[in-house]
Amino acid sequence: MTGGIAHIGILTVSDRASRGEYEDRGGPAIDSWLSEVVSSPWESCPAMVEDDVDGIARKLIELSDRCSLVITTGGTGPALRDVTPEATESVCRCMLPGFGELMRSVSLQSVPTAILSRQTAGIRGACLIVNLPGKPAAIGECLEAVFPAIPYCIDLIGGERIETNPERLAAFRPGQRPAGTGDA
Amino acid sequence: MTGGIAHIGILTVSDRASRGEYEDRGGPAIDSWLSEVVSSPWESCPAMVEDDVDGIARKLIELSDRCSLVITTGGTGPALRDVTPEATESVCRCMLPGFGELMRSVSLQSVPTAILSRQTAGIRGACLIVNLPGKPAAIGECLEAVFPAIPYCIDLIGGERIETNPERLAAFRPGQRPAGTGDA
Amino acid sequence: MTGGIAHIGILTVSDRASRGEYEDRGGPAIDSWLSEVVSSPWESCPAMVEDDVDGIARKLIELSDRCSLVITTGGTGPALRDVTPEATESVCRCMLPGFGELMRSVSLQSVPTAILSRQTAGIRGACLIVNLPGKPAAIGECLEAVFPAIPYCIDLIGGERIETNPERLAAFRPGQRPAGTGDA
Repeated sequence: MTGGIAHIGILTVSDRASRGEYEDRGGPAIDSWLSEVVSSPWESCPAMVEDDVDGIARKLIELSDRCSLVITTGGTGPALRDVTPEATESVCRCMLPGFGELMRSVSLQSVPTAILSRQTAGIRGACLIVNLPGKPAAIGECLEAVFPAIPYCIDLIGGERIETNPERLAAFRPGQRPAGTGDA
Repeated sequence: MTGGIAHIGILTVSDRASRGEYEDRGGPAIDSWLSEVVSSPWESCPAMVEDDVDGIARKLIELSDRCSLVITTGGTGPALRDVTPEATESVCRCMLPGFGELMRSVSLQSVPTAILSRQTAGIRGACLIVNLPGKPAAIGECLEAVFPAIPYCIDLIGGERIETNPERLAAFRPGQRPAGTGDA
Repeated sequence: MTGGIAHIGILTVSDRASRGEYEDRGGPAIDSWLSEVVSSPWESCPAMVEDDVDGIARKLIELSDRCSLVITTGGTGPALRDVTPEATESVCRCMLPGFGELMRSVSLQSVPTAILSRQTAGIRGACLIVNLPGKPAAIGECLEAVFPAIPYCIDLIGGERIETNPERLAAFRPGQRPAGTGDA
């Protein structure tokens, strides 16, 4: 898509952070992780929304229209107000179940309650949307696990190019083919 | 929810056991496992039903109205009469894919046919529903794997409190927050 | 079902191979793997189709009407033309998520981009349909992982009997019960 700069949305989903009842720690944790790992030019597009399925879906549409990657934090558990995966699924053309499987399997090494997370990932247009849990501790371990596959995924759907600092985290591109060809 | 006693449904799904053609071994295996592990007061609510999607769904609704946890056994395979996951999905507000992933991954260490199980888990109201396979041997290994996350899951959806005997199996509660808050 | 010979469909899904722009390597790789592993009589039913959801679905219906197993290759990634999982789901009575989980987890040991594959498996009538990626290197590792469970799965849905060469790959049948009984 555009040559120069990659746009990355960071969406904090939380009733309490949206009402200012507590400070958002998930969004800044994602921003700081990306600053450490992404070596090509990128612009952070932060946003915040309550745990409401329609409100989250609207924000995801807005962000995915101008970003190649949107990372959400929060709203992935089993509670009644946890609806981020539903909102994500409602705006995506297709889902990528391998992201949720791998993130749960990695988090399971830290806490047995990792299986309660319904976090997933999907494609909308030329944007990959990835759900992360709300807890800052889980954000790093999830991103370490799935990020190596993200730049190539964005290539395949025609998004902006992302490079990583290979000494920090090596992004994997299995062989260059034109975006949009159906043989992956 | 109520302070004192937790209600746990145990639903055996089997054409042959329902017709009395063979003895139900799955339900008693679950009951005996729970008796060993759960240390807080609980009441077993056993039930049995044929492999029929509407009949299973009706039983799941009945049981989940008065239980905080319903564990099914049987009907999770690929055969035509295996419809427990479909019935479960039809009555749940949301599904928790991490349960099925972890149970299959654990059973896979015993038998390669573990991947044939479609067992899953989901939330209905203030009740967690978990599918187990029909084979008694698989019941123990599946419960050992997922039960550490179950009491906290039930807290989050406003169900009854369950404590386990920590020397036998430690339930994990990552930090006490009020039930129903959307940040898990 | 029939006593003697098992019919196995091998469906290559690829725009470019269908147009003759490059040689299909996935289909022959599956055929050659099966020739090495399956010891009972079997007939290969090869087919090729473009990355079009309706066209793939029609081919899957045709093949599953006369085969006990259909293996697809290609079209499982995140790109716009990758629609094999959607076509598979559209023709199946039920899905078997354990196949995709295990195949991704095995491929992840080779490449971090394994999580981008949406490959799955499902049942249509007396036929098991399994999606494999398009890359020949991934085909072997995926089949090695899931094939031990396939002959028993086909027994359970009333398909044709498949035996494997136990010195090469042992198929697992946990105990003989009549096909179609709902207790797996």
